[in-house]
Amino acid sequence: MADQNLTPDLVVIGGGPGGYVASIRAAQLGLSVVCVEFDKTLGGTCVNVGCIPSKALLSSSEHYEFALKHAKDHGIEIAGVQLNLQQMLKRKDDVVAQNTKGVEFLFKKNKVTWAKGVGTLKAGNVVEVKALDGALTTYRPKHVILATGSVPMQLPFLPFDEERVLSNVGALRIPEVPKHLIVIGGGVIGLELGSVWRRLGAKVTVIEYAPTILPGNDDDITKEAHKIFTKQGLEIHTATKVTGGGRNGSMVTIEAEKDGQAMRFEADYVLVSIGRKPSLTGVDAAALGLALGTRGEIVVDAQMRTSLPNVFAIGDAVGGKLLAHKAEEEGVIAAEVIAGHHAKMHYHNMPGVVYTWPEIATAGLTEAEARATGKAIKVGKFPFSANGRARSMASTEGFVKFVTDAATDEILGCHMIGPNVSDLLSEIVLAMEYRGTADDVGETVHSHPTLSEVVKEAALAALGRAIHI
Amino acid sequence: MADQNLTPDLVVIGGGPGGYVASIRAAQLGLSVVCVEFDKTLGGTCVNVGCIPSKALLSSSEHYEFALKHAKDHGIEIAGVQLNLQQMLKRKDDVVAQNTKGVEFLFKKNKVTWAKGVGTLKAGNVVEVKALDGALTTYRPKHVILATGSVPMQLPFLPFDEERVLSNVGALRIPEVPKHLIVIGGGVIGLELGSVWRRLGAKVTVIEYAPTILPGNDDDITKEAHKIFTKQGLEIHTATKVTGGGRNGSMVTIEAEKDGQAMRFEADYVLVSIGRKPSLTGVDAAALGLALGTRGEIVVDAQMRTSLPNVFAIGDAVGGKLLAHKAEEEGVIAAEVIAGHHAKMHYHNMPGVVYTWPEIATAGLTEAEARATGKAIKVGKFPFSANGRARSMASTEGFVKFVTDAATDEILGCHMIGPNVSDLLSEIVLAMEYRGTADDVGETVHSHPTLSEVVKEAALAALGRAIHI
Repeated sequence: MADQNLTPDLVVIGGGPGGYVASIRAAQLGLSVVCVEFDKTLGGTCVNVGCIPSKALLSSSEHYEFALKHAKDHGIEIAGVQLNLQQMLKRKDDVVAQNTKGVEFLFKKNKVTWAKGVGTLKAGNVVEVKALDGALTTYRPKHVILATGSVPMQLPFLPFDEERVLSNVGALRIPEVPKHLIVIGGGVIGLELGSVWRRLGAKVTVIEYAPTILPGNDDDITKEAHKIFTKQGLEIHTATKVTGGGRNGSMVTIEAEKDGQAMRFEADYVLVSIGRKPSLTGVDAAALGLALGTRGEIVVDAQMRTSLPNVFAIGDAVGGKLLAHKAEEEGVIAAEVIAGHHAKMHYHNMPGVVYTWPEIATAGLTEAEARATGKAIKVGKFPFSANGRARSMASTEGFVKFVTDAATDEILGCHMIGPNVSDLLSEIVLAMEYRGTADDVGETVHSHPTLSEVVKEAALAALGRAIHI
Repeated sequence: MADQNLTPDLVVIGGGPGGYVASIRAAQLGLSVVCVEFDKTLGGTCVNVGCIPSKALLSSSEHYEFALKHAKDHGIEIAGVQLNLQQMLKRKDDVVAQNTKGVEFLFKKNKVTWAKGVGTLKAGNVVEVKALDGALTTYRPKHVILATGSVPMQLPFLPFDEERVLSNVGALRIPEVPKHLIVIGGGVIGLELGSVWRRLGAKVTVIEYAPTILPGNDDDITKEAHKIFTKQGLEIHTATKVTGGGRNGSMVTIEAEKDGQAMRFEADYVLVSIGRKPSLTGVDAAALGLALGTRGEIVVDAQMRTSLPNVFAIGDAVGGKLLAHKAEEEGVIAAEVIAGHHAKMHYHNMPGVVYTWPEIATAGLTEAEARATGKAIKVGKFPFSANGRARSMASTEGFVKFVTDAATDEILGCHMIGPNVSDLLSEIVLAMEYRGTADDVGETVHSHPTLSEVVKEAALAALGRAIHI
């Protein structure tokens, strides 16, 4: 490629949600941009083996479970429901392909160059890209953004083989419905993928080290989620430490301990979803003098600058909450700062979602966190069971909970479990960006009959004046 | 009932969403309240024969259509799908009963007395209630709220018989799937109930007098809706005037005219959904000296006061948009004013929703209305087809459109057609209450992958900087 620009304004290492969004935003602002990605497709973990394929399987498996269990209540009589798992997985792959090709299209449209290969950051902000065929290309950009993502953590005695011992990658393409799937780690990934395979017919056992599933969430949420998921058929063991285990042919054995008692689980598949850690492929931090934090994450300031001049970092590689929308926003901030604009990242109201059914969506302080500040607080809760739309959908589990400042009525946190709460939360994140109050939300008209009325009523409940409860 | 209070603080005539909410709010504020309702159940049109049962049938019929047409794509193979219409209608009735009993429970909890019978307002704010058995009770309250609702308009040559010539009431309980259902009036009710019966197998023909379906909505929305509903199989005739027709045994004939050409339609059922008008049962406006507007609606001020001292009116009876959530909010305002609080109604950002699939949800000015103000405006649009969650749900039709003030970036209107937009709109109604900007919405983190990202991107599009398009 004789015409390639080897001295672009910006090289982004990593084409996941952080990196590709940073690339596009920088190009919008007039910079010449090269984005390095070694995978066969753009989009990173999120698009290829994370958010997107899991949502496709969650959607399909919800429909499957509806056909099996709930259609009859609605007057829909179905003879013989058969799972065609290959088709379900193929549709998932098609959805992924739509999205990865979409990113490729956006790169062309915005004139972002995709450098296919493994990028390495060298001293003096030189980026060397080694293509699959071994060819080396050396870029000398003005700025670099590191968006190298994260990788799943594994258990020392149980390395991933993606056949029987699975990370998110393997758990999205199990070629049969497991008889028994053990999920080690009751966080977002474990509960989402555990839900998928349970709906498709697997026995699913979740083992969580912390006292609750979804540790870090509001206590009311984790309690309600535990109750609902157990009722759905997940066997959940909290406060349980996995102590050993291994694969033996087509079986996996897991040893664990709870309250001093030894436990033993046998299954045909195990998903290890105990967390992820920053990935620094192509970045020799020690050699470069790049400052890292205690968990191996790249240290950045509020404008996403690293300790190296003109080198920025974003996304999972900088730690914090490992969320695609966090990475995207950090990518926008980094691109804008590099382009000379004012921009600054903050994390006060960063939303988090679990795409189980019902969904879970939260932002801001939990009740316990808010109490720990010493402020007087108020709490308002409203259940979906008292909402007309939820009843008409026959999806009445869960609630919306507000935590507010008793003195000012400012919303400090909002915690939701229920139908479509992933979308309901956006109103409250916006309200919190305005430092809005429960009164602001409670006195705003919400269409009837919508699920969003539960949000309004929960806000009114924090003021002691919900109507429908 | 010897212990009944014949001189309560407040009598509310009508137990629909406006009336029952006003009753509860007034009771919360310490007033003694009697609510008069002649129907066998509380909840009015909305709960009994409107919003709630239609949403139950919309939900069930969506599932039915999915089983027939889309399950296979997801890898769900179904040998045979049979409609059990009686069960589908029974579930709908169960959902209605949950809601009407819910209101009854709320009355008991809040100590609101339900006076069962027909209420009549007499001079001097006396309310006489005639029970089903003919017994008369006379209340002399300090205040009265008229919440008498609305009734469907009919065509002079085609009176409702609720067997073949249907209003919303009959169209919610047709005992068989029509071979051919004619819908006169392509507004919200016609399109929602037309969608239900089309999904269940009826041929459905929609006849609309105005140049577009959903007249009054943003042009982009009506165009997109027309295209989508036509593709779904609705036969839509716009700019078509119904000139005559009648029932003949089990058939109905409709004569119409378009561009000077006569048309003739035959069907086994016809739904007449050409609008509703204020209902004033028990209120002899002329005799009382109660001021009415040109459409027969009760004239009120921003505090819901009528021309009669201490008589308030709310909901469909006062005209404007005939929406349950408008009635509810007016009910809250009236109750608070009566209780001596500051409160004032405004209608700037009143949302409106059509619960078809995809849904339609709008608030504020249409693009045409905004242009007509003479202000320079901007428009931003983003399609669901470019959204990862919509793709994973296989529901990619539609878009979100913002209309903003070019000088200030203030959001003037927002118009959505797409999956779950009834809930997505609440964020923007709140933003408009704050007189917020597209920038406010565009720079707020929206969880990935959610449908709400389309809202964020459409706001960014109004600023010329959407990422994913």
